[in-house]
Amino acid sequence: MRNWLLPEYIEDVLPRDAYRIEKIRRLIMDMLFAHGYQFVMPPLLEYVESLLAGSGSGMNLRMFKVVDQLSGRMMGLRADMTPQAARIDAHLLNISGVTRLCYASSVVHTVPDEITRTREPFQVGAELYGHSGIESDLEIQCLLLECLSVSGIHSIHLDLGHIRVFRSLIRDSGIKPEFEMELYAALWAKDISSLKELVRTGLNKRLTRSVQNALLLLPELYGDGTVLLSARQHLPDFPEIGEALDQLEHVARILQPYVDRITFDLADLRGYHYHTGMVFAVYTPGCPAPIALGGRYDEIGKSFGRARPATGFSLDLKQLSQLTDMNGYPSGILAPWKPEDEKLAAMVRQLRAEGHIVVTELPGEENQEVTGCDRKLVFRNGNWEIDPVTG
Amino acid sequence: MRNWLLPEYIEDVLPRDAYRIEKIRRLIMDMLFAHGYQFVMPPLLEYVESLLAGSGSGMNLRMFKVVDQLSGRMMGLRADMTPQAARIDAHLLNISGVTRLCYASSVVHTVPDEITRTREPFQVGAELYGHSGIESDLEIQCLLLECLSVSGIHSIHLDLGHIRVFRSLIRDSGIKPEFEMELYAALWAKDISSLKELVRTGLNKRLTRSVQNALLLLPELYGDGTVLLSARQHLPDFPEIGEALDQLEHVARILQPYVDRITFDLADLRGYHYHTGMVFAVYTPGCPAPIALGGRYDEIGKSFGRARPATGFSLDLKQLSQLTDMNGYPSGILAPWKPEDEKLAAMVRQLRAEGHIVVTELPGEENQEVTGCDRKLVFRNGNWEIDPVTG
Repeated sequence: MRNWLLPEYIEDVLPRDAYRIEKIRRLIMDMLFAHGYQFVMPPLLEYVESLLAGSGSGMNLRMFKVVDQLSGRMMGLRADMTPQAARIDAHLLNISGVTRLCYASSVVHTVPDEITRTREPFQVGAELYGHSGIESDLEIQCLLLECLSVSGIHSIHLDLGHIRVFRSLIRDSGIKPEFEMELYAALWAKDISSLKELVRTGLNKRLTRSVQNALLLLPELYGDGTVLLSARQHLPDFPEIGEALDQLEHVARILQPYVDRITFDLADLRGYHYHTGMVFAVYTPGCPAPIALGGRYDEIGKSFGRARPATGFSLDLKQLSQLTDMNGYPSGILAPWKPEDEKLAAMVRQLRAEGHIVVTELPGEENQEVTGCDRKLVFRNGNWEIDPVTG
Repeated sequence: MRNWLLPEYIEDVLPRDAYRIEKIRRLIMDMLFAHGYQFVMPPLLEYVESLLAGSGSGMNLRMFKVVDQLSGRMMGLRADMTPQAARIDAHLLNISGVTRLCYASSVVHTVPDEITRTREPFQVGAELYGHSGIESDLEIQCLLLECLSVSGIHSIHLDLGHIRVFRSLIRDSGIKPEFEMELYAALWAKDISSLKELVRTGLNKRLTRSVQNALLLLPELYGDGTVLLSARQHLPDFPEIGEALDQLEHVARILQPYVDRITFDLADLRGYHYHTGMVFAVYTPGCPAPIALGGRYDEIGKSFGRARPATGFSLDLKQLSQLTDMNGYPSGILAPWKPEDEKLAAMVRQLRAEGHIVVTELPGEENQEVTGCDRKLVFRNGNWEIDPVTG
């Protein structure tokens, strides 16, 4: 076995890509800071129970686990930073008003994501706690659009959903959780034949005819603004569904000028286990997977002793950096090795302070190709000047 | 068990500290970039064999391990990024000249460091490959001093050692590796009685009288410049020892103006398993542990198929950020929630672009204390102006 081989779906990020990631990371974080989102750095490892708080069973299977030799308990390697941020809001900061947090670091999964094909995304996210109104959903979505804009993502397709449409259809029906999960799975997979089977067979005895029809209609409620009209017309007249549709319409109207395209997907049940309100996904040309995800999840703090309204977004910076039109690594300037030359030292210091890359050629290194340098310092007429490096 | 409790020696970094870490991280990375050190992001997990390449048995015990369900092989959670950078130099970049790399991310240990008391340091480091002369050791040490200076560390004690003093004493003696390790352990622990025992008893049959005396002298060769004089006088006249002492003297003379104090420690065998030349540690008042470590390790690339001269440093940014005199979180400006007010929106945009933190007060949030805001935007005489927030 060769020592330099990496496990499948685990990669080194080499200078060219790492530099671009670093650049976008700073632009996004500065944007988050400027909006009052406070940076937190939760640990890579913590007890499994904390990391699974509020999440579904999928998270458990995606999480690496190790034994903590100090306590004998199981620790998990975080697969998502959202529960960690919620824990910090609920317990450590314990502020009664609105809290805004952001984070930027790696998460690790046992198996690769189907589309992005990595087991180590670099997760950047923002979360807003303590406000249940649509204004905070809107703040989060506007912030995401600004972050994508500074990252050099200029074509945006925003896809909106609302967990409360499906949830209000089944909430009062008294159906068993297993059946709810089966329905959810069929809808999420857009598995129409299973859905029909589930709705029509014996399991559905508790569902009224109008709820049955609504469930069968949901997978078709995908597309542009006409989806909302169709939903108002054909879904049952539950107040909660009306509110959800109002929220979707309101948000779409405000964000329309800032994106290329808005669609609605009333069967989008991603994160059904913890989302509670509006959810969204952002797409851009050149990538079949969403480049950012988010939504409302008001219950997540409960297992930390403090359920608070919450909404947020997160994205994978590695994936995003592949889609941006940002420039790559800046090229450097070569300086000869003359430790006694104070004039040269001053010139090098100044160039570096101005943001230039200056590489000192070590003795023995002269005339070797130095990666990434296209200019060099030469002494001419009593001064150090910059010349192009010629082949 | 309460879900919000973290494992021992594992901490959240909250906004105040996280902000300072982020600030110093950028200053150090910009310094590394400006000197031509190229940023790489190796993965958190890789096969255990790669992570242990060139390291001692201590590393194995400090590393968390998980099974890779895709390959069935053991993966380790990195406890040090130095072998990862060496792997990238040896295999991925494969440049014949000098390569300069840097990295900045978390590493994880199974047990806490005795002094810093954390299991998740944030390791920042720089490595220079492909140059074996003292000039590259010097470049790395100067770079470290510049990084510490921009981080707000102003009082520096540099402690220098050289692995080749001890190594040349025993290299030609033909002693068994177990005995070498026992000697090493006694010297490193400054355990004089064990050292005496080892040197004087039967195990030492292969050591000449002068080597025996030299080994017993090493623990005393600690202190200021007189150590070098004493070493030249009392250690055997091996060419390799002479060269090592020359290098120490040379580096000390050049760095003296930039530090408060330089000491030498000829029994400093930290990293004896992989270091091969000059080693150094940096101390600052207020911290008993070194705040940065480094040295030469020319063999580490061997297990990746390409042994190259190498020297570098690394430090724990979490620890460093506790010692700096940098300011904390900047305070923010509160803006009212008036989505239709274009004049306000323009003012907010401008303030944020200038680097200010502006927090929008969401409906219902008014008059609640918003953490970290000491000013607010008020409308007066047809303009939005900044007022202090009064209790």
